[in-house]
Amino acid sequence: MTLIVTGGKVVTPEGARHLDVVVEGEKIAALLPPGEAVRNHAAAEIVDARGKLVIPAGVDPHVHLLVGFMGQRSVYDFGSGGIAALRGGTTAIVDFALQRRGGSMLKGLAHRRKQADANVTLDYGLHLIATDVNEATLAELPQLRAQGVTTLKVYTVYEEDGLKLEDGQLHALMAEAARHDMSIVLHAENAGIVERLRSEAVAAGHTEPRWHALTRPPIVEIEAVGRAIAFSRATGCGVHIFHLVAADAIALVEAARAEGLPVTAETCTHYLALTDEALERENGHEYILSPPLRDRANQDRLWQGIVEKGLQLVASDEVSYSAKAKALGLPSFADVANGITGIEARLPVLFTLGVDQGRIGLQRFVELFSTWPAEIFGFAGKGRIVPGYDADLAIIDPVTRRTMSPASDYGDIGYNPYSGMDLTGFATETIYRGKVVVRDGVFLGQEGQGRFVARASAKRPAP
Amino acid sequence: MTLIVTGGKVVTPEGARHLDVVVEGEKIAALLPPGEAVRNHAAAEIVDARGKLVIPAGVDPHVHLLVGFMGQRSVYDFGSGGIAALRGGTTAIVDFALQRRGGSMLKGLAHRRKQADANVTLDYGLHLIATDVNEATLAELPQLRAQGVTTLKVYTVYEEDGLKLEDGQLHALMAEAARHDMSIVLHAENAGIVERLRSEAVAAGHTEPRWHALTRPPIVEIEAVGRAIAFSRATGCGVHIFHLVAADAIALVEAARAEGLPVTAETCTHYLALTDEALERENGHEYILSPPLRDRANQDRLWQGIVEKGLQLVASDEVSYSAKAKALGLPSFADVANGITGIEARLPVLFTLGVDQGRIGLQRFVELFSTWPAEIFGFAGKGRIVPGYDADLAIIDPVTRRTMSPASDYGDIGYNPYSGMDLTGFATETIYRGKVVVRDGVFLGQEGQGRFVARASAKRPAP
Amino acid sequence: MTLIVTGGKVVTPEGARHLDVVVEGEKIAALLPPGEAVRNHAAAEIVDARGKLVIPAGVDPHVHLLVGFMGQRSVYDFGSGGIAALRGGTTAIVDFALQRRGGSMLKGLAHRRKQADANVTLDYGLHLIATDVNEATLAELPQLRAQGVTTLKVYTVYEEDGLKLEDGQLHALMAEAARHDMSIVLHAENAGIVERLRSEAVAAGHTEPRWHALTRPPIVEIEAVGRAIAFSRATGCGVHIFHLVAADAIALVEAARAEGLPVTAETCTHYLALTDEALERENGHEYILSPPLRDRANQDRLWQGIVEKGLQLVASDEVSYSAKAKALGLPSFADVANGITGIEARLPVLFTLGVDQGRIGLQRFVELFSTWPAEIFGFAGKGRIVPGYDADLAIIDPVTRRTMSPASDYGDIGYNPYSGMDLTGFATETIYRGKVVVRDGVFLGQEGQGRFVARASAKRPAP
Amino acid sequence: MTLIVTGGKVVTPEGARHLDVVVEGEKIAALLPPGEAVRNHAAAEIVDARGKLVIPAGVDPHVHLLVGFMGQRSVYDFGSGGIAALRGGTTAIVDFALQRRGGSMLKGLAHRRKQADANVTLDYGLHLIATDVNEATLAELPQLRAQGVTTLKVYTVYEEDGLKLEDGQLHALMAEAARHDMSIVLHAENAGIVERLRSEAVAAGHTEPRWHALTRPPIVEIEAVGRAIAFSRATGCGVHIFHLVAADAIALVEAARAEGLPVTAETCTHYLALTDEALERENGHEYILSPPLRDRANQDRLWQGIVEKGLQLVASDEVSYSAKAKALGLPSFADVANGITGIEARLPVLFTLGVDQGRIGLQRFVELFSTWPAEIFGFAGKGRIVPGYDADLAIIDPVTRRTMSPASDYGDIGYNPYSGMDLTGFATETIYRGKVVVRDGVFLGQEGQGRFVARASAKRPAP
Repeated sequence: MTLIVTGGKVVTPEGARHLDVVVEGEKIAALLPPGEAVRNHAAAEIVDARGKLVIPAGVDPHVHLLVGFMGQRSVYDFGSGGIAALRGGTTAIVDFALQRRGGSMLKGLAHRRKQADANVTLDYGLHLIATDVNEATLAELPQLRAQGVTTLKVYTVYEEDGLKLEDGQLHALMAEAARHDMSIVLHAENAGIVERLRSEAVAAGHTEPRWHALTRPPIVEIEAVGRAIAFSRATGCGVHIFHLVAADAIALVEAARAEGLPVTAETCTHYLALTDEALERENGHEYILSPPLRDRANQDRLWQGIVEKGLQLVASDEVSYSAKAKALGLPSFADVANGITGIEARLPVLFTLGVDQGRIGLQRFVELFSTWPAEIFGFAGKGRIVPGYDADLAIIDPVTRRTMSPASDYGDIGYNPYSGMDLTGFATETIYRGKVVVRDGVFLGQEGQGRFVARASAKRPAP
Repeated sequence: MTLIVTGGKVVTPEGARHLDVVVEGEKIAALLPPGEAVRNHAAAEIVDARGKLVIPAGVDPHVHLLVGFMGQRSVYDFGSGGIAALRGGTTAIVDFALQRRGGSMLKGLAHRRKQADANVTLDYGLHLIATDVNEATLAELPQLRAQGVTTLKVYTVYEEDGLKLEDGQLHALMAEAARHDMSIVLHAENAGIVERLRSEAVAAGHTEPRWHALTRPPIVEIEAVGRAIAFSRATGCGVHIFHLVAADAIALVEAARAEGLPVTAETCTHYLALTDEALERENGHEYILSPPLRDRANQDRLWQGIVEKGLQLVASDEVSYSAKAKALGLPSFADVANGITGIEARLPVLFTLGVDQGRIGLQRFVELFSTWPAEIFGFAGKGRIVPGYDADLAIIDPVTRRTMSPASDYGDIGYNPYSGMDLTGFATETIYRGKVVVRDGVFLGQEGQGRFVARASAKRPAP
Repeated sequence: MTLIVTGGKVVTPEGARHLDVVVEGEKIAALLPPGEAVRNHAAAEIVDARGKLVIPAGVDPHVHLLVGFMGQRSVYDFGSGGIAALRGGTTAIVDFALQRRGGSMLKGLAHRRKQADANVTLDYGLHLIATDVNEATLAELPQLRAQGVTTLKVYTVYEEDGLKLEDGQLHALMAEAARHDMSIVLHAENAGIVERLRSEAVAAGHTEPRWHALTRPPIVEIEAVGRAIAFSRATGCGVHIFHLVAADAIALVEAARAEGLPVTAETCTHYLALTDEALERENGHEYILSPPLRDRANQDRLWQGIVEKGLQLVASDEVSYSAKAKALGLPSFADVANGITGIEARLPVLFTLGVDQGRIGLQRFVELFSTWPAEIFGFAGKGRIVPGYDADLAIIDPVTRRTMSPASDYGDIGYNPYSGMDLTGFATETIYRGKVVVRDGVFLGQEGQGRFVARASAKRPAP
Repeated sequence: MTLIVTGGKVVTPEGARHLDVVVEGEKIAALLPPGEAVRNHAAAEIVDARGKLVIPAGVDPHVHLLVGFMGQRSVYDFGSGGIAALRGGTTAIVDFALQRRGGSMLKGLAHRRKQADANVTLDYGLHLIATDVNEATLAELPQLRAQGVTTLKVYTVYEEDGLKLEDGQLHALMAEAARHDMSIVLHAENAGIVERLRSEAVAAGHTEPRWHALTRPPIVEIEAVGRAIAFSRATGCGVHIFHLVAADAIALVEAARAEGLPVTAETCTHYLALTDEALERENGHEYILSPPLRDRANQDRLWQGIVEKGLQLVASDEVSYSAKAKALGLPSFADVANGITGIEARLPVLFTLGVDQGRIGLQRFVELFSTWPAEIFGFAGKGRIVPGYDADLAIIDPVTRRTMSPASDYGDIGYNPYSGMDLTGFATETIYRGKVVVRDGVFLGQEGQGRFVARASAKRPAP
């Protein structure tokens, strides 16, 4: 079966050009001059991309679906969350499997796969959250690797949730991971400073949402990033910094990369679109996430990092706690569930603020949204429009504008972090493994169509 | 008289947004939400910019109009060349006045103004080409400055044309220029190496066009750039590197800027679009210019410099020698007149390769094409779309594509360096000091409408 | 009363020269050409320094006198330890007062002064070891400062001894200390890694002395140094790195200093003279100290840091546990008391390995031994031979050589870490506040002659 | 025949230690504990070095013997100048052979060897001064190399003397030299600036000696150093910067070396001991040399470069124009012969200011005086005291002091640049190829005992 995307401007590694994309089965078969493919493949299904952009579908390496908190579940599971991702032009994600303390990593992996495989609607991989590093669990790394889990998630905070890994374990884990060509993905915050400042604030009755940011000053993040880079230098283990927002940390990442260390960093959709002003709003608690939103000047420097390659990708850090769930923790910031949704908005937010408002070109956009996340996270055959690669494509409308509202999301989350923003760059079609699975927001596929993807080692862009 | 540009996406310093631009007289009066201006100014002239981009009109700081060679004049004078510029969305240029050896700088300036003022069709400033630095001519600098000439052009080559300034004079000129807050603009090539290699090549019968590039290896340019930076450090004098093409020189400029030296650099339209492959073509001699075209890998690094700010602007280095004039020097590269036209193509070439093909965003495009050349070269009130600034605007069509040919240029040059390239981003209207002077390529103004602009000191973008 | 040191080569800030030093009371009064002082001061006491070097007496900013462990006291108290220091050409030290957890810093200070003042034999200051940072104790900083304690000692390890300060407290302490122009002195080791590796080693029966080093790999120290520098950048608080031995950390210190941060670092006598080979000796446990001895290549790089100014001073980290006390912890390295004596050997070891063996000149020697420790630790009027400064001088014999043995030390420690080494550069006379208090190793003063010195803010040498 | 140097402190690559040096024939045979050699070699000649330092004899890579000017010859030829060198503890030098313009390099070499071989009294090599670079002379490089000339001297000034090589020739020479693993030694001054400023000064009647320095501001040297480094990067050719005195140029050398370029630099005896104040003296013209003496602050930074390795050696740039010859050019600085003697004073000046005054240790002293010049200039088997190396040794008295005067030099030069300075570190014995050739200043050898040394490729110390 042949599918042809015709008339669009295609963003290839060589630059954006008007080309037809010929798809055979699950793969890209050819790139031809505009119109030529249609003339020669009479029988094919045609996707009319005139006036549209054709990009490699997004890869979102930082997604939390099906998570719970105080008896509330996230809105999205692997079925619905996958559909939200596909609507957002994304066909591959990396979610998380959790090793429980005292438990096995492999069991954590098996458990999560069981949760996901039944109804997942797109390609997914898993990071393994390491919470207990000992001889037995270190011995599991080769098997994890063999099962396609090449990245280990580490938290340096959240002791109260049983997630924090202290330095002795982190160092041991990295030393062993390096031996198996596995990498660390890191939630980098200094637990001690956060805990002290938070308890001081709470004791003083400072519980408004803005105290969430004030009790996590930039040094909290910068210190932990620096520590991880030192461990990377000592062990040779790759490190990907999750959700970098403290702009001073960019210089640390750049210096590490210039030194040749296997280090990369992402920022997230929300940090590029929102500032700590949001915490002052009436619904400020809905913007509680960690590390916290920062000020405008900091955001400008994040954009500079985006333009000049100090940051290598933009992830969503998707967590779909509903408005109701977010409110459960009130009145104190310290009790509000962290995180917001972004799996679907990542596309229009990055496109609008980046390309439409003129900060970045299409090539950098595609690198940040698709190519580099695919390559850094070992999705072979994804992230580029090249013959032989997976036919995972997003057809983007760069003209039509929509005002964001809670109804913009696929799921009923009850609020949208970007409400009121006038965005463009939505996907009109998403093609997943050669099939149009979303058209104009409507899911045309079926639950369970997705697959677990065994990922390879990281391939990092040059500094 | 009110003019309103409505419905377009306007590139302001804060980013690209849909706005109406209200023009009163020669100035920008207001930026209003789309449609609002039209509703409130019934009597105004309306420019419909729906589907278009509205940018600050281009500033081209490196233009040679009305120049001669072996009895042949360039195609363009200040009238026709200005029209070509306006068609290319550019409303301000800097041309050159020549001090003849043994002569006065001020006389050179007066002479050039006489040539230009009668028929110039846009705003123009002048660099003063210094060829003879002595006590008398150094004493003229304050008067030059008072007459709005804040930049002195220096050649480190072309002794045979009476242009080369040797180091003793260059150092003395820079020391004195710094005292008057004037800057140097530099043709940076090492004369000794060029002359030796060229005479060796000619003696060996190597006269094909590609020998033009082979006899000017990158060190020729790199050395002279390094020398100028050393002189800048010693004297405090500002230096703008003209037509940088040897990519290794970018690092020198970046280091100088990081050190805080008053140094900037441009590359040119042709270096971004053409490579030394052009010299191998049948009409290879038409691509003889200095410094010469380089290879593809070098061009990729120039683009990296464009993206990451190592280069601060793109100029045309316009010289409109006709095909006939270029052929006069054959069969030897050493006798062919240097230079090609680019004053009109600068817009679509930079837009297509930069924005349309996705290498850069609109903001960087405008910085390179308009804002930074305006500010580095002291055009007050130009280069940004801000109330109170000159109403110099270009309305760009980002969709329509045209294949370049010799007919693409306003003047009858006989060849177009970009022939056969499929470009977009042409200006549909150019607004100069509040009036639409070009629409769909047709000049609606009149010869002599232009003005000499007294320029201020350089304002350089941060490194 | 006038004292004249005549005929010696005097190391002044302008270089080493043959000069007479005239002392009036406690102060240096004049520097005169050789012989001139003696001719003009017939009545004075004369110290014949012909063939000798005259240097500003040493300042040792890292000394632990009168400490206990498992019921054993260190050999030295403030009386005897001060005599040992004076024999080693050192007239000023900084020891430590301990804040107990739950207790007051000021009380800790008062307690230590009481221990010291009665019998101290030289000038001493105190660092305050902060172990409990809370609102009450932070409020004590101004009073500490007023009492001449400008430096706070922080341990990032030794939780088991109630010494470790976790990051929240460290950050809070530094933020507040910066407000009072106080600095941190840091024992920089990562507790988590040490604890994990040590317990693994002990569990595996790896208890030999060399496992002390193997369980504290360089990253232990490097990470903590990097962390402290990040905190310094965030808070503005000065940081002095104690006992730096992991050579890779030197680059971190140099980068911080080049950036303008208030950071300095020392290495210690033993790291310059001994390597981890010592841990393999029969009495290897006597060389257990933290951070541990490293290998020869690392030592070479420490010397490079000494020569090229990456390290700013050499301290002793004096701890006089006797051979008997050291053996108490056997058979396991993990139970052996950390530390060795060096307060007296610092002079001949640094002189022999540094000057005598030709690695450094006399000026750097004096900077490392006297000038920079005096200035970094706020001893006004010490560390240089300049009129008006304290007449604290050491007369050094650069020729006579002695083989080190346990008998070389003033105290009966039972072993000497440098036994068997052939050293030179011993002090023949030490002059303390204008009086010869040691001659040929014999103490001529009296217990209690010393003073507590209220120290000023740090004055750090330029990077 | 065995010769033993006993009782001295020997500076070996491992540091200074008391050792006996056993010499067999022309080579060092063994290093033994003090006294041991004498006990076991009853028949040997003994040199008593008790209280002395034993260093590898000096290598002076920048010496002009037998040169002429306005009918006056330098005082020293290869016989007498060699004796002066030996008295100064130096057993190997590099002098210069001159290619005359239009002439052959090989002929220049043969001519100089003829001048030297008859009466030379020490080991000597030759740099070839390239003044005419063309196809024929480039073809001579392999033969020069085969005859042991691995370095080509280039002047970027002195056009009036037929010495200046312009950039085209310099670039061509370096490109070809790199192919044969030969290096450039460079007199780095910008001719254009010097010529302009000098003619301006002379025209204005500014002819006093201090105008020599004022007409050669630091940029003169800095520019040329930067240019040579750029050429080194482009061609791969090694560059040694002669007589660096403008301290800002040190940073250029350090950056080049850190980048891995084959670049080294020397400063000279006189720059370390004298400042431009000397030009203000009554006999100021005797201190005219190029590049000129600079001020005290600059000298301090040269010393910093010496201490921290930014400069790799100290040469003499020996030129023995007599006081009478120096005066010939009066009254104008522009007519005074450049250069001063230093071949003999290099030892006590560097020892006194460096070691005796405490700026550097013995190891750095030996690196600068002997080891690095030997290795950078390809003298195999010289520069270190190691068994198997040439028995070229200097026995230095570090105690005895002498006041310099014109009588201090071996030759009757009529003035001594260091007159009045109180120096130490003179050689009591110089051993050349196993024989004591100077004792207490008396030459014990014979004219013609020296040899031309075919030199190998450069071995440069790590940055």
